[in-house]
Amino acid sequence: MDNTIKKIGIISKPRKSDAGPVLSDLVRWLKERGIEPLMDQETAGLIDFDSPHKRPDIAALSDIILVLGGDGTLISVSRLIGSRGTPILGVNLGSLGFLTEVTLDEMYPLLEKILAGKMSIDERWTLDVAVQRGDKELAKYTVLNDVVINKGALARMILMETVIDGRYLNTYRADGLIISTPTGSTAYSLSAGGPIINPKVGAIIISPICPHTITNRPIVVREDVMIEVTLQTENEDVLVTLDGQEGYPLQYLDKVVVKKSANVIRLITSPDKDYYEVLRQKLRWGV
Amino acid sequence: MDNTIKKIGIISKPRKSDAGPVLSDLVRWLKERGIEPLMDQETAGLIDFDSPHKRPDIAALSDIILVLGGDGTLISVSRLIGSRGTPILGVNLGSLGFLTEVTLDEMYPLLEKILAGKMSIDERWTLDVAVQRGDKELAKYTVLNDVVINKGALARMILMETVIDGRYLNTYRADGLIISTPTGSTAYSLSAGGPIINPKVGAIIISPICPHTITNRPIVVREDVMIEVTLQTENEDVLVTLDGQEGYPLQYLDKVVVKKSANVIRLITSPDKDYYEVLRQKLRWGV
Amino acid sequence: MDNTIKKIGIISKPRKSDAGPVLSDLVRWLKERGIEPLMDQETAGLIDFDSPHKRPDIAALSDIILVLGGDGTLISVSRLIGSRGTPILGVNLGSLGFLTEVTLDEMYPLLEKILAGKMSIDERWTLDVAVQRGDKELAKYTVLNDVVINKGALARMILMETVIDGRYLNTYRADGLIISTPTGSTAYSLSAGGPIINPKVGAIIISPICPHTITNRPIVVREDVMIEVTLQTENEDVLVTLDGQEGYPLQYLDKVVVKKSANVIRLITSPDKDYYEVLRQKLRWGV
Amino acid sequence: MDNTIKKIGIISKPRKSDAGPVLSDLVRWLKERGIEPLMDQETAGLIDFDSPHKRPDIAALSDIILVLGGDGTLISVSRLIGSRGTPILGVNLGSLGFLTEVTLDEMYPLLEKILAGKMSIDERWTLDVAVQRGDKELAKYTVLNDVVINKGALARMILMETVIDGRYLNTYRADGLIISTPTGSTAYSLSAGGPIINPKVGAIIISPICPHTITNRPIVVREDVMIEVTLQTENEDVLVTLDGQEGYPLQYLDKVVVKKSANVIRLITSPDKDYYEVLRQKLRWGV
Repeated sequence: MDNTIKKIGIISKPRKSDAGPVLSDLVRWLKERGIEPLMDQETAGLIDFDSPHKRPDIAALSDIILVLGGDGTLISVSRLIGSRGTPILGVNLGSLGFLTEVTLDEMYPLLEKILAGKMSIDERWTLDVAVQRGDKELAKYTVLNDVVINKGALARMILMETVIDGRYLNTYRADGLIISTPTGSTAYSLSAGGPIINPKVGAIIISPICPHTITNRPIVVREDVMIEVTLQTENEDVLVTLDGQEGYPLQYLDKVVVKKSANVIRLITSPDKDYYEVLRQKLRWGV
Repeated sequence: MDNTIKKIGIISKPRKSDAGPVLSDLVRWLKERGIEPLMDQETAGLIDFDSPHKRPDIAALSDIILVLGGDGTLISVSRLIGSRGTPILGVNLGSLGFLTEVTLDEMYPLLEKILAGKMSIDERWTLDVAVQRGDKELAKYTVLNDVVINKGALARMILMETVIDGRYLNTYRADGLIISTPTGSTAYSLSAGGPIINPKVGAIIISPICPHTITNRPIVVREDVMIEVTLQTENEDVLVTLDGQEGYPLQYLDKVVVKKSANVIRLITSPDKDYYEVLRQKLRWGV
Repeated sequence: MDNTIKKIGIISKPRKSDAGPVLSDLVRWLKERGIEPLMDQETAGLIDFDSPHKRPDIAALSDIILVLGGDGTLISVSRLIGSRGTPILGVNLGSLGFLTEVTLDEMYPLLEKILAGKMSIDERWTLDVAVQRGDKELAKYTVLNDVVINKGALARMILMETVIDGRYLNTYRADGLIISTPTGSTAYSLSAGGPIINPKVGAIIISPICPHTITNRPIVVREDVMIEVTLQTENEDVLVTLDGQEGYPLQYLDKVVVKKSANVIRLITSPDKDYYEVLRQKLRWGV
Repeated sequence: MDNTIKKIGIISKPRKSDAGPVLSDLVRWLKERGIEPLMDQETAGLIDFDSPHKRPDIAALSDIILVLGGDGTLISVSRLIGSRGTPILGVNLGSLGFLTEVTLDEMYPLLEKILAGKMSIDERWTLDVAVQRGDKELAKYTVLNDVVINKGALARMILMETVIDGRYLNTYRADGLIISTPTGSTAYSLSAGGPIINPKVGAIIISPICPHTITNRPIVVREDVMIEVTLQTENEDVLVTLDGQEGYPLQYLDKVVVKKSANVIRLITSPDKDYYEVLRQKLRWGV
């Protein structure tokens, strides 16, 4: 980790007007320490910060990126990182997130440490997703949490033939299918009945959504497999969605191919919290 | 039960070409016994039966209706019955259904009994569903299995404020919400984690689909309550679907009102099977 | 409801020393109003109250019984009521219970109302449970929450043949079987994957514990059925437990017979809370 | 893999009289090929085979061990292997097992291949389990499927403080806790709501049994962690059970320490089946 930090990108949850005072404070605090803050247009707009950058440029120019908001905002920022590995500091504005575990109170002490060259990083791996039609690749994505194949509101159950490293697993008849990293195990997959998986585990979770066959329980496979899901239903309104934020329409026989990506997301962690504590708080264990 | 049966409506699963021989046989068998078979256009088309009727007329003219197909076909027929209470005989073409428990082998012996005035009826109650916008009622339906509020494929979780007999239950944040009769408990609700409910129980099941809060478990309430669900999410692609066969688009603040209907569906039961046996077979208990 | 209340039984959670000040206060408050407090030995011991009664006598002599503690304490008191229908007021000492929804703050205002002849009652029905060996009845109980057939710690799965109103349901191969009232649906049955059932619903829940066949989902039947469970496993350490508080050892072929009891438990409800609010608080919905 | 096989241990499911003809046949078949069959007393007793060996000696003397029976029998044999790594061939007597996937029909062709030096091995890792009281180690085991901490039939919920690599995870309040390998994920853990985990995944599953807090969902951690579970409940009838076959009583504050073992179990696989096919058959997917 290079530790001469000169530029810190700041990206806030959109339309989050109460982020204003925090941002102003933060900008002053950084400038006092000779650090240049960079903001995207939307964030800059909250405090009349001039010379904002385009979002992708922030990822390219910043030494670290501070995200102010919830897990959704952090995930949208993670899509800008590509192979750069820029560390991300997730600061929540009130309610603890799995990826944004740092509170406003903890932010400045943690920034002090970071500027002093002491930061601890939690590296999260990601999944590469390709959508194929025949022998054409139609689209390509990288996800931190999950890729979901999902039927539309009126559509009936869809059929999804699933193959792992060339071996037939099952043809799911369900509302959809979630393919999730351990990082995503506490997001959508959990709502669909999937297990919690510590992000250090090398595994991918395949969780069907409302499967017709109720023994189609979530299945966990190695992280280094290739998962191919082929839509076996005609004439339906079906989408593949990426981290719940982007979507691509699927046709009959389209194939979604998922495998571990070379890109990683590097989260700056709070020294005061570990994964299990965040888990206990979020799921209200032992309250 | 009036037992002079003169006309039997026959409705087959659409595009089920292997129903042809069964239909021809059945028509001959009925005519030999002085019973007039009535068919809708699609069923008639499978065997060149002349003078077909419109589907709604079949319900009006038949003493009983024989459905050849699966549960989906029977449910589509149930929508034609209205308040008439015409008994329905569900005959499956191969795979046992919860509503179509009679096999082809059992069909003729059972028809003999029915014509001899001996039939046992399993009465299933239904739910009336109204869609309201402001003080306008936009649509009205009756369902045998379930009414489902469902988000589209790309939409994120939707918010559904749910009130029971004027008392606030919860605002579900989920992919959707299933409101089901006991008859529907073994259909979609089961896939969403709901319990199996014997159709004799006077109860309605409310099962959220992939709820964000995982303690939002299915809840069972009395059959005589009024359930009001208000969509609290803007700008989304949301539908209310009726027995999985019809849909109506919902807007922000639209309300879906559900209560027990005065209409019942009268299923003719096999003398050889009871509810628990069908359950064991369908769910492969004790195999 | 007879409303001249002269004697109030008070039963506190055992060994709950912090109940002392509350009890002293309560005794003074009642005496000032001409009401005679009655206590069992354990409760009396917390404040040196003289002339305590035996627990069963409290139920016989009191006009209402105030329970200070959690749901477990209230359930143990409910076993004393028999057919008398003595109203019970459940006051929790800190953490809200499904049956003890009244807080210490609410206690005195509510007692004022009760003494003024205004109390609202929530009537909960119960289950009669008989243990039969051959044609002998070995034991008889009444439960408010649930009757559970349970294997010992080392025993492997047990087989439980289950018959409803003379019709075979299933032979469960599981760790145990929970037969629960709607009142008990939020207790042990919920932990085993059962649904939440509003206490107004006339239904009994049968929830297997860790069933070998994972399609053995909880099933809900009418409240007026007779459920017979026969232990089909030899040489095992198996118990039937009643409301989690009493147990009776079962042998091979012993039968547990469950049906609705004529006895009811009458809970005095808080005017400020309804069932759904307690549910939301206990399960932390919408937090 | 050394491939000069001279001695094959044969261990049959106990009291499985219909194994007799199979055993006689097998013995003749092996002798014709110059292979010496070894049997334990119980197996030998089924066909009057003379000079049986003690079970542990079979593991020591055999080049491979053929198990005739179900998964339970194979697991009991796996306990004899220790660090030797003797390959085990699991042949089921009728119903497919997760560990005994070879049918009688497939047995001889597979044995031919094995004798010809061609066998494919599926290596399964195991867990070492130690029971500690204060600083004494009371007992030590190795398990292939799972270690379970379990309450007795009458006992109420028990408290189990769980620590992973020195970090506090949670204090479970439940009927018990299952710590399972991926191999064990389709056994008891599945009944308790755990996910299916492909045996190639390096992970351990922690599944609470009927947890009081329903958000205590199964959690999956890395295979190389140390899991320490301390019983925090006094005066209870609690056991730790090993692969469901042995048990050791636990006292208040006893600690169960679990970590990956150096020993592996080497299963000889059928060339005609893969893991997913066994899964589909056992869970009746796509039937």
